[in-house]
Amino acid sequence: MRHGILGIAPWRDQLHEMGVRAAAKAIRNHELTVTGLCRGGMFPAWDAAGRKAAIEDNLRAVDEAQALGAQCLVLVAGGLPAGSKDLAAAREQVRDGIAAILPRAREARVPIAIEPLHPMYAADRACVNTLAQALDLCDTLDPENEGGLGVALDVYHVWWDPQLEHGIARAGKRRLLAFHVCDWLVPTRDLLTDRGMMGDGVIDLPRIRSWIELAGYKGFHEVEIFSELDWWKRDPDEVLETCKDRHQRFC
Amino acid sequence: MRHGILGIAPWRDQLHEMGVRAAAKAIRNHELTVTGLCRGGMFPAWDAAGRKAAIEDNLRAVDEAQALGAQCLVLVAGGLPAGSKDLAAAREQVRDGIAAILPRAREARVPIAIEPLHPMYAADRACVNTLAQALDLCDTLDPENEGGLGVALDVYHVWWDPQLEHGIARAGKRRLLAFHVCDWLVPTRDLLTDRGMMGDGVIDLPRIRSWIELAGYKGFHEVEIFSELDWWKRDPDEVLETCKDRHQRFC
Repeated sequence: MRHGILGIAPWRDQLHEMGVRAAAKAIRNHELTVTGLCRGGMFPAWDAAGRKAAIEDNLRAVDEAQALGAQCLVLVAGGLPAGSKDLAAAREQVRDGIAAILPRAREARVPIAIEPLHPMYAADRACVNTLAQALDLCDTLDPENEGGLGVALDVYHVWWDPQLEHGIARAGKRRLLAFHVCDWLVPTRDLLTDRGMMGDGVIDLPRIRSWIELAGYKGFHEVEIFSELDWWKRDPDEVLETCKDRHQRFC
Repeated sequence: MRHGILGIAPWRDQLHEMGVRAAAKAIRNHELTVTGLCRGGMFPAWDAAGRKAAIEDNLRAVDEAQALGAQCLVLVAGGLPAGSKDLAAAREQVRDGIAAILPRAREARVPIAIEPLHPMYAADRACVNTLAQALDLCDTLDPENEGGLGVALDVYHVWWDPQLEHGIARAGKRRLLAFHVCDWLVPTRDLLTDRGMMGDGVIDLPRIRSWIELAGYKGFHEVEIFSELDWWKRDPDEVLETCKDRHQRFC
Protein backbone atom coordinates (compact mmCIF):
# COMPACT_ATOMS: atom_id res chain seq x y z
CA MET A 1 0.00 0.00 0.00
CA ARG A 2 2.98 2.24 0.63
CA HIS A 3 3.31 2.35 -3.15
CA GLY A 4 -0.38 2.71 -3.90
CA ILE A 5 -0.46 -0.82 -5.28
CA LEU A 6 -3.81 -2.38 -4.47
CA GLY A 7 -3.41 -6.02 -5.36
CA ILE A 8 -1.07 -8.95 -4.98
CA ALA A 9 -0.78 -12.43 -6.50
CA PRO A 10 1.16 -14.58 -4.04
CA TRP A 11 3.07 -17.70 -5.03
CA ARG A 12 2.33 -20.86 -3.14
CA ASP A 13 5.90 -21.55 -2.04
CA GLN A 14 6.00 -18.18 -0.29
CA LEU A 15 2.54 -18.75 1.10
CA HIS A 16 3.59 -22.09 2.62
CA GLU A 17 6.68 -20.50 4.14
CA MET A 18 4.59 -17.88 5.88
CA GLY A 19 1.56 -20.09 6.59
CA VAL A 20 -1.75 -19.61 4.79
CA ARG A 21 -3.62 -18.10 7.77
CA ALA A 22 -0.86 -15.65 8.61
CA ALA A 23 -0.59 -14.63 4.96
CA ALA A 24 -4.34 -14.19 4.62
CA LYS A 25 -4.35 -12.00 7.72
CA ALA A 26 -1.41 -9.88 6.58
CA ILE A 27 -3.01 -9.37 3.18
CA ARG A 28 -6.34 -8.39 4.80
CA ASN A 29 -4.57 -5.97 7.11
CA HIS A 30 -2.97 -4.27 4.13
CA GLU A 31 -6.34 -4.18 2.35
CA LEU A 32 -4.83 -5.84 -0.70
CA THR A 33 -6.94 -7.61 -3.31
CA VAL A 34 -5.58 -11.09 -4.05
CA THR A 35 -5.80 -11.05 -7.81
CA GLY A 36 -4.78 -14.67 -8.10
CA LEU A 37 -2.95 -17.48 -6.42
CA CYS A 38 0.10 -18.70 -8.39
CA ARG A 39 -0.08 -21.50 -9.12
CA GLY A 40 -1.83 -24.81 -9.57
CA GLY A 41 -1.43 -27.12 -12.51
CA MET A 42 1.55 -29.35 -13.29
CA PHE A 43 -0.81 -32.23 -14.03
CA PRO A 44 1.08 -34.58 -16.38
CA ALA A 45 2.92 -37.47 -14.76
CA TRP A 46 4.20 -40.88 -15.79
CA ASP A 47 1.76 -42.94 -13.78
CA ALA A 48 -1.67 -42.77 -12.22
CA ALA A 49 -0.22 -42.23 -8.75
CA GLY A 50 1.68 -39.16 -9.96
CA ARG A 51 -1.40 -37.76 -11.64
CA LYS A 52 -3.47 -38.40 -8.50
CA ALA A 53 -0.89 -36.61 -6.36
CA ALA A 54 -1.00 -33.63 -8.72
CA ILE A 55 -4.78 -33.46 -8.49
CA GLU A 56 -4.65 -33.61 -4.69
CA ASP A 57 -2.12 -30.81 -4.64
CA ASN A 58 -4.39 -28.76 -6.87
CA LEU A 59 -7.33 -29.36 -4.51
CA ARG A 60 -5.16 -27.97 -1.71
CA ALA A 61 -4.38 -24.98 -3.91
CA VAL A 62 -8.11 -24.40 -4.34
CA ASP A 63 -8.52 -24.40 -0.55
CA GLU A 64 -5.65 -21.95 -0.18
CA ALA A 65 -7.08 -19.67 -2.85
CA GLN A 66 -10.43 -19.76 -1.04
CA ALA A 67 -8.77 -18.94 2.29
CA LEU A 68 -7.06 -15.94 0.69
CA GLY A 69 -10.19 -14.81 -1.12
CA ALA A 70 -8.19 -14.98 -4.35
CA GLN A 71 -9.98 -13.85 -7.50
CA CYS A 72 -8.67 -16.93 -9.28
CA LEU A 73 -6.29 -19.86 -9.08
CA VAL A 74 -3.77 -19.57 -11.93
CA LEU A 75 -2.96 -22.91 -13.58
CA VAL A 76 0.33 -23.60 -15.31
CA ALA A 77 -0.50 -26.84 -17.07
CA GLY A 78 2.76 -28.73 -16.73
CA GLY A 79 4.97 -30.07 -19.49
CA LEU A 80 6.08 -33.50 -20.59
CA PRO A 81 6.82 -36.02 -17.83
CA ALA A 82 10.59 -36.57 -17.78
CA GLY A 83 11.54 -38.86 -20.65
CA SER A 84 8.21 -38.60 -22.44
CA LYS A 85 7.78 -37.20 -25.95
CA ASP A 86 4.03 -37.57 -26.02
CA LEU A 87 2.66 -34.02 -26.03
CA ALA A 88 -0.82 -35.16 -27.01
CA ALA A 89 -1.01 -37.46 -23.97
CA ALA A 90 0.27 -34.70 -21.67
CA ARG A 91 -2.42 -32.42 -23.01
CA GLU A 92 -5.09 -35.01 -22.29
CA GLN A 93 -3.77 -35.34 -18.74
CA VAL A 94 -4.07 -31.58 -18.29
CA ARG A 95 -7.66 -31.69 -19.48
CA ASP A 96 -8.45 -34.56 -17.13
CA GLY A 97 -6.70 -32.86 -14.22
CA ILE A 98 -8.68 -29.66 -14.62
CA ALA A 99 -11.88 -31.67 -14.98
CA ALA A 100 -11.08 -33.38 -11.68
CA ILE A 101 -10.67 -30.15 -9.69
CA LEU A 102 -13.31 -27.99 -11.34
CA PRO A 103 -16.30 -29.14 -9.24
CA ARG A 104 -14.47 -28.41 -5.98
CA ALA A 105 -13.22 -25.07 -7.32
CA ARG A 106 -16.75 -24.07 -8.23
CA GLU A 107 -18.01 -25.08 -4.81
CA ALA A 108 -15.29 -22.91 -3.28
CA ARG A 109 -16.07 -20.07 -5.72
CA VAL A 110 -12.46 -20.07 -6.88
CA PRO A 111 -12.33 -19.46 -10.64
CA ILE A 112 -9.72 -21.52 -12.45
CA ALA A 113 -7.53 -19.47 -14.82
CA ILE A 114 -5.60 -21.55 -17.35
CA GLU A 115 -2.47 -19.66 -18.35
CA PRO A 116 -1.19 -20.47 -21.83
CA LEU A 117 2.60 -20.40 -21.68
CA HIS A 118 4.97 -19.44 -24.48
CA PRO A 119 5.72 -22.36 -26.81
CA MET A 120 9.34 -22.32 -25.65
CA TYR A 121 8.08 -23.80 -22.37
CA ALA A 122 6.08 -26.63 -23.96
CA ALA A 123 8.49 -29.34 -22.86
CA ASP A 124 9.24 -28.39 -19.29
CA ARG A 125 6.54 -26.08 -17.95
CA ALA A 126 3.27 -26.05 -19.80
CA CYS A 127 1.88 -27.89 -22.79
CA VAL A 128 -0.91 -25.33 -23.14
CA ASN A 129 0.80 -22.90 -25.48
CA THR A 130 -1.71 -20.66 -27.19
CA LEU A 131 -4.76 -18.74 -26.13
CA ALA A 132 -6.83 -20.69 -28.67
CA GLN A 133 -5.72 -23.97 -27.09
CA ALA A 134 -6.60 -22.72 -23.59
CA LEU A 135 -10.00 -21.55 -24.81
CA ASP A 136 -10.61 -24.90 -26.52
CA LEU A 137 -9.92 -26.52 -23.15
CA CYS A 138 -12.40 -24.16 -21.49
CA ASP A 139 -15.02 -24.98 -24.11
CA THR A 140 -14.46 -28.72 -23.63
CA LEU A 141 -14.74 -28.54 -19.84
CA ASP A 142 -17.37 -25.81 -19.59
CA PRO A 143 -19.31 -25.94 -22.86
CA GLU A 144 -22.10 -23.71 -21.58
CA ASN A 145 -19.70 -21.06 -20.26
CA GLU A 146 -21.25 -21.29 -16.82
CA GLY A 147 -18.36 -19.39 -15.28
CA GLY A 148 -15.57 -20.40 -12.96
CA LEU A 149 -13.23 -21.39 -15.78
CA GLY A 150 -11.18 -19.11 -17.98
CA VAL A 151 -7.71 -17.92 -18.84
CA ALA A 152 -4.91 -15.83 -17.39
CA LEU A 153 -3.43 -13.78 -20.19
CA ASP A 154 0.25 -12.90 -19.85
CA VAL A 155 1.51 -10.73 -22.69
CA TYR A 156 4.94 -12.36 -22.50
CA HIS A 157 3.47 -15.70 -23.54
CA VAL A 158 1.03 -14.58 -26.22
CA TRP A 159 2.22 -11.32 -27.75
CA TRP A 160 3.58 -13.03 -30.89
CA ASP A 161 0.35 -14.89 -31.72
CA PRO A 162 -1.25 -13.86 -35.03
CA GLN A 163 -4.56 -15.08 -33.58
CA LEU A 164 -4.30 -13.03 -30.36
CA GLU A 165 -6.85 -10.34 -31.15
CA HIS A 166 -9.30 -12.96 -32.34
CA GLY A 167 -8.66 -15.11 -29.26
CA ILE A 168 -9.25 -12.25 -26.84
CA ALA A 169 -12.55 -11.42 -28.50
CA ARG A 170 -13.47 -15.11 -28.38
CA ALA A 171 -12.59 -15.31 -24.68
CA GLY A 172 -14.78 -12.36 -23.79
CA LYS A 173 -15.24 -10.95 -20.35
CA ARG A 174 -16.32 -14.21 -18.73
CA ARG A 175 -13.21 -16.13 -19.71
CA LEU A 176 -10.66 -13.34 -19.17
CA LEU A 177 -9.76 -13.81 -15.52
CA ALA A 178 -6.33 -12.17 -15.24
CA PHE A 179 -3.97 -9.96 -17.23
CA HIS A 180 -0.20 -9.96 -16.72
CA VAL A 181 2.20 -7.42 -18.20
CA CYS A 182 5.94 -7.19 -18.71
CA ASP A 183 7.97 -6.91 -21.92
CA TRP A 184 9.91 -9.08 -24.39
CA LEU A 185 13.56 -8.09 -24.61
CA VAL A 186 15.66 -8.22 -27.77
CA PRO A 187 17.93 -10.06 -27.37
CA THR A 188 16.50 -12.41 -24.75
CA ARG A 189 19.45 -13.94 -22.92
CA ASP A 190 17.66 -16.62 -20.94
CA LEU A 191 14.49 -18.55 -21.69
CA LEU A 192 13.03 -18.15 -18.21
CA THR A 193 14.45 -15.21 -16.30
CA ASP A 194 15.14 -12.46 -18.77
CA ARG A 195 11.81 -10.69 -18.97
CA GLY A 196 11.78 -6.96 -19.49
CA MET A 197 10.19 -4.02 -17.69
CA MET A 198 7.30 -2.53 -19.65
CA GLY A 199 8.71 -0.17 -22.27
CA ASP A 200 12.09 -1.89 -22.56
CA GLY A 201 10.99 -4.43 -25.15
CA VAL A 202 8.91 -4.92 -28.27
CA ILE A 203 5.44 -5.77 -27.01
CA ASP A 204 2.74 -3.36 -28.14
CA LEU A 205 1.10 -3.20 -24.71
CA PRO A 206 -1.49 -0.49 -25.46
CA ARG A 207 -2.75 -2.49 -28.42
CA ILE A 208 -3.21 -5.65 -26.38
CA ARG A 209 -4.79 -3.63 -23.57
CA SER A 210 -7.25 -2.15 -26.06
CA TRP A 211 -8.26 -5.65 -27.13
CA ILE A 212 -8.93 -6.88 -23.59
CA GLU A 213 -10.88 -3.73 -22.77
CA LEU A 214 -12.94 -4.12 -25.90
CA ALA A 215 -13.72 -7.64 -24.67
CA GLY A 216 -14.92 -6.14 -21.40
CA TYR A 217 -12.00 -6.90 -19.08
CA LYS A 218 -12.04 -4.58 -16.09
CA GLY A 219 -9.71 -6.41 -13.71
CA PHE A 220 -6.24 -5.66 -12.45
CA HIS A 221 -3.07 -5.44 -14.50
CA GLU A 222 -0.46 -7.58 -12.78
CA VAL A 223 3.22 -6.95 -13.32
CA GLU A 224 5.24 -10.18 -13.48
CA ILE A 225 8.90 -9.78 -14.38
CA PHE A 226 11.19 -12.78 -13.96
CA SER A 227 14.54 -11.02 -14.24
CA GLU A 228 17.50 -12.68 -12.63
CA LEU A 229 19.85 -10.52 -14.64
CA ASP A 230 18.37 -7.16 -13.80
CA TRP A 231 15.24 -6.34 -11.77
CA TRP A 232 15.62 -9.03 -9.13
CA LYS A 233 18.99 -7.50 -8.26
CA ARG A 234 17.60 -4.03 -7.61
CA ASP A 235 16.09 -2.40 -4.57
CA PRO A 236 12.43 -3.51 -4.28
CA ASP A 237 11.20 0.04 -3.70
CA GLU A 238 12.91 1.19 -6.88
CA VAL A 239 11.39 -1.74 -8.78
CA LEU A 240 7.86 -0.95 -7.59
CA GLU A 241 8.24 2.74 -8.42
CA THR A 242 9.51 1.82 -11.87
CA CYS A 243 6.63 -0.61 -12.40
CA LYS A 244 4.09 2.10 -11.61
CA ASP A 245 5.80 4.68 -13.77
CA ARG A 246 6.25 2.35 -16.72
CA HIS A 247 2.73 1.03 -16.39
CA GLN A 248 1.37 4.55 -16.70
CA ARG A 249 3.57 5.40 -19.65
CA PHE A 250 3.68 2.17 -21.65
CA CYS A 251 0.59 0.06 -20.91
CA MET B 1 29.15 -38.15 -50.90
CA ARG B 2 31.89 -39.69 -48.79
CA HIS B 3 29.22 -40.10 -46.13
CA GLY B 4 26.46 -41.27 -48.45
CA ILE B 5 24.63 -37.99 -47.98
CA LEU B 6 22.91 -37.05 -51.22
CA GLY B 7 21.75 -33.50 -50.69
CA ILE B 8 22.88 -30.15 -49.41
CA ALA B 9 21.20 -26.84 -48.55
CA PRO B 10 23.83 -24.12 -48.82
CA TRP B 11 23.60 -20.79 -47.04
CA ARG B 12 23.98 -17.67 -49.11
CA ASP B 13 26.83 -16.20 -47.10
CA GLN B 14 28.93 -19.29 -47.80
CA LEU B 15 27.77 -19.29 -51.39
CA HIS B 16 28.90 -15.70 -51.87
CA GLU B 17 32.26 -16.47 -50.31
CA MET B 18 32.87 -19.29 -52.78
CA GLY B 19 31.15 -17.65 -55.74
CA VAL B 20 27.86 -18.95 -57.14
CA ARG B 21 29.32 -20.47 -60.31
CA ALA B 22 32.14 -22.27 -58.48
CA ALA B 23 29.70 -23.55 -55.88
CA ALA B 24 27.24 -24.75 -58.51
CA LYS B 25 30.05 -26.59 -60.28
CA ALA B 26 31.38 -28.19 -57.09
CA ILE B 27 27.89 -29.33 -56.12
CA ARG B 28 27.30 -30.80 -59.60
CA ASN B 29 30.65 -32.58 -59.49
CA HIS B 30 29.66 -34.21 -56.21
CA GLU B 31 26.26 -35.15 -57.65
CA LEU B 32 24.52 -33.51 -54.73
CA THR B 33 20.88 -32.47 -54.86
CA VAL B 34 20.45 -28.88 -53.68
CA THR B 35 17.41 -29.33 -51.47
CA GLY B 36 17.10 -25.63 -50.85
CA LEU B 37 18.92 -22.34 -50.76
CA CYS B 38 19.01 -20.73 -47.29
CA ARG B 39 17.77 -18.10 -47.23
CA GLY B 40 15.71 -15.29 -48.65
CA GLY B 41 13.24 -13.23 -46.69
CA MET B 42 13.97 -10.52 -44.11
CA PHE B 43 11.40 -8.27 -45.74
CA PRO B 44 10.28 -5.82 -43.02
CA ALA B 45 12.06 -2.47 -42.91
CA TRP B 46 11.37 1.01 -41.59
CA ASP B 47 11.02 2.70 -44.93
CA ALA B 48 10.16 2.03 -48.54
CA ALA B 49 13.84 2.12 -49.55
CA GLY B 50 14.66 -0.61 -47.04
CA ARG B 51 11.79 -2.77 -48.23
CA LYS B 52 12.80 -2.25 -51.86
CA ALA B 53 16.39 -3.27 -51.06
CA ALA B 54 15.09 -6.43 -49.37
CA ILE B 55 13.01 -7.34 -52.41
CA GLU B 56 15.98 -6.79 -54.70
CA ASP B 57 18.14 -9.01 -52.53
CA ASN B 58 15.45 -11.68 -52.69
CA LEU B 59 15.37 -11.46 -56.49
CA ARG B 60 19.12 -12.12 -56.47
CA ALA B 61 18.49 -15.08 -54.19
CA VAL B 62 16.01 -16.44 -56.72
CA ASP B 63 18.68 -16.15 -59.43
CA GLU B 64 21.20 -17.94 -57.23
CA ALA B 65 18.74 -20.70 -56.41
CA GLN B 66 18.09 -21.11 -60.12
CA ALA B 67 21.81 -21.25 -60.88
CA LEU B 68 22.22 -23.99 -58.27
CA GLY B 69 19.16 -25.89 -59.44
CA ALA B 70 17.83 -25.62 -55.88
CA GLN B 71 14.57 -27.39 -55.15
CA CYS B 72 13.38 -24.30 -53.32
CA LEU B 73 14.37 -20.95 -51.87
CA VAL B 74 13.78 -21.00 -48.13
CA LEU B 75 12.33 -17.74 -46.78
CA VAL B 76 12.85 -16.57 -43.24
CA ALA B 77 10.33 -13.76 -43.07
CA GLY B 78 12.20 -11.23 -40.96
CA GLY B 79 11.13 -9.74 -37.64
CA LEU B 80 10.30 -6.27 -36.43
CA PRO B 81 12.35 -3.41 -37.85
CA ALA B 82 14.58 -2.11 -35.01
CA GLY B 83 12.46 0.05 -32.70
CA SER B 84 9.12 -1.05 -34.11
CA LYS B 85 6.45 -2.86 -32.08
CA ASP B 86 4.05 -3.25 -34.97
CA LEU B 87 3.92 -6.97 -35.67
CA ALA B 88 0.82 -6.64 -37.84
CA ALA B 89 2.60 -4.16 -40.12
CA ALA B 90 5.69 -6.38 -40.32
CA ARG B 91 3.48 -9.27 -41.33
CA GLU B 92 1.90 -7.20 -44.09
CA GLN B 93 5.36 -6.28 -45.34
CA VAL B 94 6.28 -9.95 -45.49
CA ARG B 95 3.17 -10.69 -47.51
CA ASP B 96 3.93 -7.82 -49.89
CA GLY B 97 7.56 -8.85 -50.21
CA ILE B 98 6.69 -12.40 -51.18
CA ALA B 99 4.07 -11.10 -53.61
CA ALA B 100 6.77 -8.97 -55.23
CA ILE B 101 9.19 -11.85 -55.87
CA LEU B 102 6.74 -14.65 -56.65
CA PRO B 103 6.32 -13.93 -60.39
CA ARG B 104 10.08 -13.96 -60.97
CA ALA B 105 10.47 -17.10 -58.84
CA ARG B 106 7.83 -18.87 -60.89
CA GLU B 107 9.50 -17.80 -64.11
CA ALA B 108 12.76 -19.22 -62.78
CA ARG B 109 10.99 -22.37 -61.56
CA VAL B 110 12.29 -21.77 -58.05
CA PRO B 111 9.59 -22.71 -55.53
CA ILE B 112 9.38 -20.34 -52.57
CA ALA B 113 9.28 -22.14 -49.19
CA ILE B 114 8.09 -19.95 -46.31
CA GLU B 115 9.59 -21.27 -43.10
CA PRO B 116 7.52 -20.57 -39.99
CA LEU B 117 9.95 -19.86 -37.16
CA HIS B 118 9.42 -20.58 -33.48
CA PRO B 119 7.49 -17.81 -31.71
CA MET B 120 10.58 -17.02 -29.64
CA TYR B 121 12.06 -15.50 -32.83
CA ALA B 122 9.06 -13.30 -33.63
CA ALA B 123 10.83 -10.06 -32.72
CA ASP B 124 14.21 -10.50 -34.31
CA ARG B 125 14.08 -13.17 -37.01
CA ALA B 126 10.67 -14.02 -38.36
CA CYS B 127 7.16 -12.80 -37.72
CA VAL B 128 5.72 -15.89 -39.41
CA ASN B 129 5.45 -18.15 -36.39
CA THR B 130 3.04 -20.99 -37.02
CA LEU B 131 2.38 -23.38 -39.86
CA ALA B 132 -1.20 -22.12 -40.03
CA GLN B 133 0.03 -18.56 -40.49
CA ALA B 134 2.44 -19.62 -43.25
CA LEU B 135 -0.32 -21.55 -45.00
CA ASP B 136 -2.68 -18.58 -44.70
CA LEU B 137 0.01 -16.54 -46.46
CA CYS B 138 0.26 -19.17 -49.18
CA ASP B 139 -3.51 -19.14 -49.63
CA THR B 140 -3.55 -15.35 -49.85
CA LEU B 141 -0.77 -15.19 -52.44
CA ASP B 142 -1.63 -18.35 -54.37
CA PRO B 143 -5.34 -18.95 -53.81
CA GLU B 144 -5.60 -21.55 -56.56
CA ASN B 145 -2.60 -23.53 -55.28
CA GLU B 146 -0.94 -23.28 -58.65
CA GLY B 147 2.38 -24.41 -57.23
CA GLY B 148 5.65 -22.64 -56.66
CA LEU B 149 4.70 -21.49 -53.16
CA GLY B 150 4.70 -23.52 -49.98
CA VAL B 151 6.39 -24.06 -46.66
CA ALA B 152 9.62 -25.40 -45.23
CA LEU B 153 8.76 -27.38 -42.11
CA ASP B 154 11.43 -27.47 -39.41
CA VAL B 155 10.45 -29.60 -36.45
CA TYR B 156 12.36 -27.30 -34.08
CA HIS B 157 9.99 -24.45 -34.86
CA VAL B 158 6.68 -26.28 -34.95
CA TRP B 159 6.86 -29.39 -32.75
CA TRP B 160 4.92 -27.72 -29.88
CA ASP B 161 1.97 -26.65 -32.02
CA PRO B 162 -1.35 -28.26 -31.06
CA GLN B 163 -2.49 -27.62 -34.66
CA LEU B 164 0.55 -29.25 -36.28
CA GLU B 165 -1.07 -32.47 -37.49
CA HIS B 166 -3.99 -30.52 -38.87
CA GLY B 167 -1.65 -27.99 -40.53
CA ILE B 168 0.43 -30.67 -42.24
CA ALA B 169 -2.69 -32.29 -43.65
CA ARG B 170 -3.90 -28.89 -44.79
CA ALA B 171 -0.55 -28.15 -46.47
CA GLY B 172 -0.61 -31.37 -48.43
CA LYS B 173 2.04 -32.52 -50.82
CA ARG B 174 1.97 -29.39 -52.98
CA ARG B 175 2.74 -26.99 -50.16
CA LEU B 176 5.26 -29.15 -48.27
CA LEU B 177 8.53 -28.17 -49.91
CA ALA B 178 11.15 -29.05 -47.31
CA PHE B 179 11.49 -30.92 -44.03
CA HIS B 180 14.16 -30.12 -41.44
CA VAL B 181 15.00 -32.25 -38.43
CA CYS B 182 16.91 -31.78 -35.20
CA ASP B 183 15.72 -31.95 -31.59
CA TRP B 184 14.55 -29.69 -28.74
CA LEU B 185 16.80 -29.94 -25.69
CA VAL B 186 15.61 -29.69 -22.08
CA PRO B 187 16.92 -27.42 -20.77
CA THR B 188 17.61 -25.16 -23.75
CA ARG B 189 20.48 -22.88 -22.79
CA ASP B 190 20.39 -20.45 -25.67
CA LEU B 191 17.50 -19.28 -27.82
CA LEU B 192 19.39 -19.63 -31.09
CA THR B 193 22.31 -22.02 -30.93
CA ASP B 194 21.38 -24.82 -28.57
CA ARG B 195 19.55 -27.22 -30.84
CA GLY B 196 19.89 -30.91 -30.19
CA MET B 197 20.89 -33.92 -32.25
CA MET B 198 17.95 -36.15 -33.11
CA GLY B 199 17.24 -38.39 -30.15
CA ASP B 200 18.73 -36.10 -27.53
CA GLY B 201 15.56 -34.09 -26.98
CA VAL B 202 11.80 -34.31 -26.66
CA ILE B 203 10.50 -34.06 -30.21
CA ASP B 204 8.47 -37.07 -31.35
CA LEU B 205 10.14 -37.21 -34.75
CA PRO B 206 8.55 -40.45 -36.02
CA ARG B 207 5.10 -39.04 -35.31
CA ILE B 208 5.77 -35.84 -37.26
CA ARG B 209 7.38 -37.88 -40.05
CA SER B 210 4.26 -40.05 -40.22
CA TRP B 211 2.13 -36.93 -40.68
CA ILE B 212 4.20 -35.54 -43.55
CA GLU B 213 4.29 -38.91 -45.26
CA LEU B 214 0.54 -39.24 -44.89
CA ALA B 215 0.31 -35.86 -46.60
CA GLY B 216 2.41 -37.25 -49.46
CA TYR B 217 5.80 -35.69 -48.75
CA LYS B 218 8.55 -37.67 -50.46
CA GLY B 219 11.43 -35.20 -50.31
CA PHE B 220 14.65 -35.10 -48.37
CA HIS B 221 15.03 -34.89 -44.61
CA GLU B 222 17.50 -32.11 -43.90
CA VAL B 223 19.46 -32.03 -40.68
CA GLU B 224 19.91 -28.51 -39.31
CA ILE B 225 21.51 -28.25 -35.88
CA PHE B 226 22.62 -24.83 -34.66
CA SER B 227 24.78 -25.90 -31.75
CA GLU B 228 27.49 -23.55 -30.66
CA LEU B 229 27.79 -25.37 -27.34
CA ASP B 230 28.23 -28.86 -28.70
CA TRP B 231 28.06 -30.10 -32.31
CA TRP B 232 29.79 -27.14 -33.95
CA LYS B 233 32.80 -27.88 -31.77
CA ARG B 234 33.15 -31.47 -32.92
CA ASP B 235 34.91 -33.08 -35.83
CA PRO B 236 32.69 -32.68 -38.95
CA ASP B 237 33.10 -36.35 -39.92
CA GLU B 238 31.90 -37.44 -36.49
CA VAL B 239 28.95 -35.06 -36.74
CA LEU B 240 27.88 -36.41 -40.12
CA GLU B 241 28.21 -40.03 -38.95
CA THR B 242 26.14 -39.20 -35.90
CA CYS B 243 23.50 -37.45 -38.02
CA LYS B 244 23.12 -40.52 -40.20
CA ASP B 245 23.01 -42.92 -37.27
CA ARG B 246 20.54 -40.84 -35.30
CA HIS B 247 18.39 -40.22 -38.32
CA GLN B 248 18.03 -43.95 -38.86
CA ARG B 249 17.26 -44.63 -35.22
CA PHE B 250 15.13 -41.65 -34.19
CA CYS B 251 13.41 -40.15 -37.23
